[in-house]
Amino acid sequence: MAGDAVGDLVTIDAVRQAAHRIRGRVKVTPVVASASLSAMVGDRLEFKAEMFQQTGSFKVRGMLHKLLRLTPQQRARGVVTVSAGNAAAALAWAARQAGTSATVVMPATAVPAKIEATRAYGGEVILADGDLFATYEAVRDERGLTPVHPFDDPDVIAGQGSLALELLAERPELDIVLVPVGGGGLISGIAVVLKTLLPDVQVVGVEPATADVVSRSLASGTVERLPSARSVADGLAAPVCGVHTLAHIQRYVDRVVRVGEESIVEATRLILSRTKLVAEPAAAVGLAALLEGTVRPYPGGLTLAVLSGGNLDVSTVLSGR
Amino acid sequence: MAGDAVGDLVTIDAVRQAAHRIRGRVKVTPVVASASLSAMVGDRLEFKAEMFQQTGSFKVRGMLHKLLRLTPQQRARGVVTVSAGNAAAALAWAARQAGTSATVVMPATAVPAKIEATRAYGGEVILADGDLFATYEAVRDERGLTPVHPFDDPDVIAGQGSLALELLAERPELDIVLVPVGGGGLISGIAVVLKTLLPDVQVVGVEPATADVVSRSLASGTVERLPSARSVADGLAAPVCGVHTLAHIQRYVDRVVRVGEESIVEATRLILSRTKLVAEPAAAVGLAALLEGTVRPYPGGLTLAVLSGGNLDVSTVLSGR
Repeated sequence: MAGDAVGDLVTIDAVRQAAHRIRGRVKVTPVVASASLSAMVGDRLEFKAEMFQQTGSFKVRGMLHKLLRLTPQQRARGVVTVSAGNAAAALAWAARQAGTSATVVMPATAVPAKIEATRAYGGEVILADGDLFATYEAVRDERGLTPVHPFDDPDVIAGQGSLALELLAERPELDIVLVPVGGGGLISGIAVVLKTLLPDVQVVGVEPATADVVSRSLASGTVERLPSARSVADGLAAPVCGVHTLAHIQRYVDRVVRVGEESIVEATRLILSRTKLVAEPAAAVGLAALLEGTVRPYPGGLTLAVLSGGNLDVSTVLSGR
Repeated sequence: MAGDAVGDLVTIDAVRQAAHRIRGRVKVTPVVASASLSAMVGDRLEFKAEMFQQTGSFKVRGMLHKLLRLTPQQRARGVVTVSAGNAAAALAWAARQAGTSATVVMPATAVPAKIEATRAYGGEVILADGDLFATYEAVRDERGLTPVHPFDDPDVIAGQGSLALELLAERPELDIVLVPVGGGGLISGIAVVLKTLLPDVQVVGVEPATADVVSRSLASGTVERLPSARSVADGLAAPVCGVHTLAHIQRYVDRVVRVGEESIVEATRLILSRTKLVAEPAAAVGLAALLEGTVRPYPGGLTLAVLSGGNLDVSTVLSGR
């Protein structure tokens, strides 16, 4: 699953083709306004609500696109990935849609609900205790499976970009777009679209300060690897940046900012209590950056935060009563 | 705040007038489907999403209607109620809409978020340590305030009924409607509408087994009072049934069932994780009854559960990490 050499960047045409291919299978998710959160951050704030996407996160956009591009031979053999999170369920769902089968190597410590969800969508889950990557390589080679990288793949990036096409259709007056950043797949696709069609829009990535591999990679100019990456926003705790994603971010993204853990928790709770939408912590980092003041809305402008998913661990809700 | 003698029951015309009076101020909330919860309970299940209502609960429907019916003299002096929950914020919001002022006597032990919300909507909160009712009576008499009962009032019942008019417009093919029951105001208004216009619809009330004052009142045929009423569904823990509401429930409601605390917690979590909507425990009792099997969907039919509010205590979310 090591990144290929970077070829050309994904184009707006590639994103349009991806959007066409996945249309009717993934959902067009709504844009939701919040008067109280707008008042809190100082100006108009709206959200792209990807918690209503299939499997509860944006990940299916890129995964389905990738699988629809497989050869018949690849499709017959199946695909494999490593994931503890939303990519696992998304790949399983997409495999069923694309007429192939998905194997997902997950850590034995993964949240039980995520393991169950992956199985419920028809994925074969292999739980690994030790070296996930060794298990993954062994399964891949034994079964002749096609590897699917959760973010560092031009077809995946093009699929994620479909979200920005929807956004532009609904909110052409956008000023700032805040995008959660883990490995950088989502923001890569979004930035290609926005900076090509509306170059004045500010595309801002937000990553946890405790899992800031993209900020570090931008600073050094090369793909960095963190010894470990942990965050309450578990969906963003990628220890490594992608080769493809770094190239797109360097070219198209205005800036990437870091947010603290406490702000992420506060932002997650605020989204739940004020919008009545279930967002996972990874989805709340855009609001967290606004709360910290690292990003400021334009006076009179429209800031849009992408709520990338809603697979919140709800086991703590109503505990302690 | 003792109930008046019961006069005539609220009519469908009274509900229509109420809906007309409050139109444009309260929201028309969406009906939301859930494929996975439908599969779980055995047939088509949809939700009326009142968490998106003003102040996060249906309560504003009845409260606003009540306040719009005040005399100019009453409006000039203001209104008062006792509440620890959604009625407090709803009355404060409605008072501002109706051009009057609201005083709410709340227990000092109320959830801080509920106290803050009531103040944020412009309500004056008086925190009482001891006898809430004594404080309430003193404030009412000193200031000449008009008392507003949170549920046992024909104008409030008529306002709550507006929800059912929306429902019929959107889902005329309804078979079963599940309505959370605390003091009975919401189900009274809904049942008048549904049983008048679509007598074959089953209107089923659901209350916590640990706060089952309406079930007991139906059994005895008179308004009962519980020595105490506690439930994880705090919004339904009314210790007393209303005089007006009991009369409406006796006349119009098919049956009222009880659900256990564990089922309420499970249902709340399922709604969050499957629909990505924030429902409070009180709102989840309909699904809880389906999970327990006390209510069974008709084969091929449409069951609709009213999600009465979304003011969940989110302070426990992401704790324990």
